Amino acid sequence: MQINGYMSKLGQQARKASRVLAAASTAQKNTALHHIAERLLAQSAWLMEENAKDISAGKASGLDEAMLDRLRLTQAGIESIAKGVRQVADLPDPVGEITDMAYRPSGIQLGKMRVPLGVVGIIYESRPNVTADAAALCLKSGNATILRGGSEAIHSNKAIALCIQEGLQAAGIDQYAVQLVQTTDREAVGQMITMSEYIDVIIPRGGKSLIERISQGAKVPVIKHLDGICHVYVAADADMEMSWKVCDNAKTHRYGVCNAMETLLVDAAVAAHFLPKMVAIYQAKGVELRGCEKTRAICEMNAANEADWSTEYLAPILSIKVVNGLDEAIAHINHYGSHHTDAIMTQDYAMSRRFLAEVDSSSVMINASTRFADGFEYGLGAEIGISTDKFHARGPVGLIGLTSQKYVVFGSGQIRS
Amino acid sequence: MQINGYMSKLGQQARKASRVLAAASTAQKNTALHHIAERLLAQSAWLMEENAKDISAGKASGLDEAMLDRLRLTQAGIESIAKGVRQVADLPDPVGEITDMAYRPSGIQLGKMRVPLGVVGIIYESRPNVTADAAALCLKSGNATILRGGSEAIHSNKAIALCIQEGLQAAGIDQYAVQLVQTTDREAVGQMITMSEYIDVIIPRGGKSLIERISQGAKVPVIKHLDGICHVYVAADADMEMSWKVCDNAKTHRYGVCNAMETLLVDAAVAAHFLPKMVAIYQAKGVELRGCEKTRAICEMNAANEADWSTEYLAPILSIKVVNGLDEAIAHINHYGSHHTDAIMTQDYAMSRRFLAEVDSSSVMINASTRFADGFEYGLGAEIGISTDKFHARGPVGLIGLTSQKYVVFGSGQIRS
Repeated sequence: MQINGYMSKLGQQARKASRVLAAASTAQKNTALHHIAERLLAQSAWLMEENAKDISAGKASGLDEAMLDRLRLTQAGIESIAKGVRQVADLPDPVGEITDMAYRPSGIQLGKMRVPLGVVGIIYESRPNVTADAAALCLKSGNATILRGGSEAIHSNKAIALCIQEGLQAAGIDQYAVQLVQTTDREAVGQMITMSEYIDVIIPRGGKSLIERISQGAKVPVIKHLDGICHVYVAADADMEMSWKVCDNAKTHRYGVCNAMETLLVDAAVAAHFLPKMVAIYQAKGVELRGCEKTRAICEMNAANEADWSTEYLAPILSIKVVNGLDEAIAHINHYGSHHTDAIMTQDYAMSRRFLAEVDSSSVMINASTRFADGFEYGLGAEIGISTDKFHARGPVGLIGLTSQKYVVFGSGQIRS
Repeated sequence: MQINGYMSKLGQQARKASRVLAAASTAQKNTALHHIAERLLAQSAWLMEENAKDISAGKASGLDEAMLDRLRLTQAGIESIAKGVRQVADLPDPVGEITDMAYRPSGIQLGKMRVPLGVVGIIYESRPNVTADAAALCLKSGNATILRGGSEAIHSNKAIALCIQEGLQAAGIDQYAVQLVQTTDREAVGQMITMSEYIDVIIPRGGKSLIERISQGAKVPVIKHLDGICHVYVAADADMEMSWKVCDNAKTHRYGVCNAMETLLVDAAVAAHFLPKMVAIYQAKGVELRGCEKTRAICEMNAANEADWSTEYLAPILSIKVVNGLDEAIAHINHYGSHHTDAIMTQDYAMSRRFLAEVDSSSVMINASTRFADGFEYGLGAEIGISTDKFHARGPVGLIGLTSQKYVVFGSGQIRS
């Protein structure tokens, strides 16, 4: 297969479909989403058959159990995917919203209209549910989509993509509105991230190395979700009971998620009081602790090294550092963090204001668990990722992050003088 | 000079200053802006002396009169620059604005806070006024700035930058908040557009070739202002008197600007009535007309070729095409246009709605001159450019376009269950 020609054809088809989709009504898009959900359920036996091919190939090629688990489609999994697609249908349509309409001194009436970005490219790894989740969000936000899944999920992805295209057709929407790259050739990715004439934004979903590789080579803008090195800073005047509870939740509620705390910062003024009970809570749950010298002078634990402060463990491991006041805490977070989500525990008004203003992260919290940084918790509905960038979209990216705004002007013959 | 080391040093200094600047008060930033304006006025004789060095070097190297004119600093020009800086001080401070604060079912209170992007790199050509204009906008929006002007304006830019730095120091702001690249070595640009660890966004200001070159090589996000191939479509039911007036203004009010009309689209149903008077208006003003076959069957003029439809003349030249209805007009604009500013003349409700929704441009207008697409006319105050991108900022980019938003969460000990 000539990859360049093939990818350009997908691109042209997507660009054309994006024009149609941008003008599609809310009802038409929702109808398509419900049709897609129905097809997925109706074809669940076949989807599992196709998935079984990926699973056996994965076993043969030596994928580990965790990978196989991410790859596996069960009846319950398919039902959950279909439910997710229906939930996207229930979200308000962001496209066409006109805001800030006001008269200017010249007599023109100026406002902003929300519009799709155009064509969204999604590059992802083994989870086949992304095929449906991402397609649903892009469709609802009026964007055409080119999906490139991992080679290990190719049969599953093809089967899901077919259900999506049948759903689109049943709703009278150009089937090229959602296209799956049908080849597993790696060259396709290289082509995808440079064809800026056809693709308006690339969203990689997967591990850090995938995202870095894509960002390196991309000529198309990328919405990046790098690591989540999240902090909680327990200030000198923090409510201790509240802090034990929140720091417990931020670390131990779930370990493998990007909004889990990876480093706990404790003010020197309260460390001797705060740490012993906190450490006992973590140790009771089997969390491995790695502390700075001052922490280890209070509680026995392994020593943290320089690399620990910038490591996303995604595991029951926590680094702990004693800091001297707010300035050191903010400096540590801005230097070692990943600009994802950081929280302060404090009862001090001025300190909370400074933390909010000066911590340079996509979510900044006062007296709440970092685990809340999430599209559903934020009321965005489903999310396509959490952006750690400042450009375009920041934090959990839902439908709004997949749109842009253009200026609209209503006149009655005004000319500029 | 070791360019890499020098640029990295500027980057580090800018990154550090950006943290300070992000936390600077509105009063402090405004004080700095007023000090800068005062220095520029107080030093105007010296600025003109330094500028004279650039002018003689420019003459010696054979710059044409238009280039020299853009390069020249006069007393009136300096007063106008100082006035512009003071106007930026008068604009509302976008930083710290918190919006959409609302309780979520979990009990957390969620909102968005507007924050600076961080460090903005500006790469521009001969006009030295950009040094002050861009620095003022970046300063007010809380961003540190690295300015890279054209080599032909190096003495003027250094002098203006010194006034800026003195103004910053007088207001107690880190002088590295605004830095001019002091070397004219071209390698500095290559370094600047790839140092994403220090620079958050690059804004090129200059001709299309500069912008394309920068976009090609950039690893840092770029806010692009490419060409302005603007259209006015006169629909079948347009008010003729209004259309003659608006089409005249859109083309002839100023020729060398990006929001001037370059192609006039006329519906076939009214072409025979509309065109003769319109053509007479243009011909009386010495505008060269290039028409499609159908246009030329109505009025005598040169033939337009395929390249004309995608050319930004920036001159008294206009291409004219007769189209069959709205669909053809929209298709032409989306295909040949530059997604800058396009207008329809119509009295039809349904047609105006479709034009608004389907024309994929940063400004879409009904019954108004394309000349209104401008930061001042839109009430943004000064603009740093007009973005023809959909990503991040679109249309005239003022202070808001130089900022991002982060999520802020007020809690009282909430944990996720």
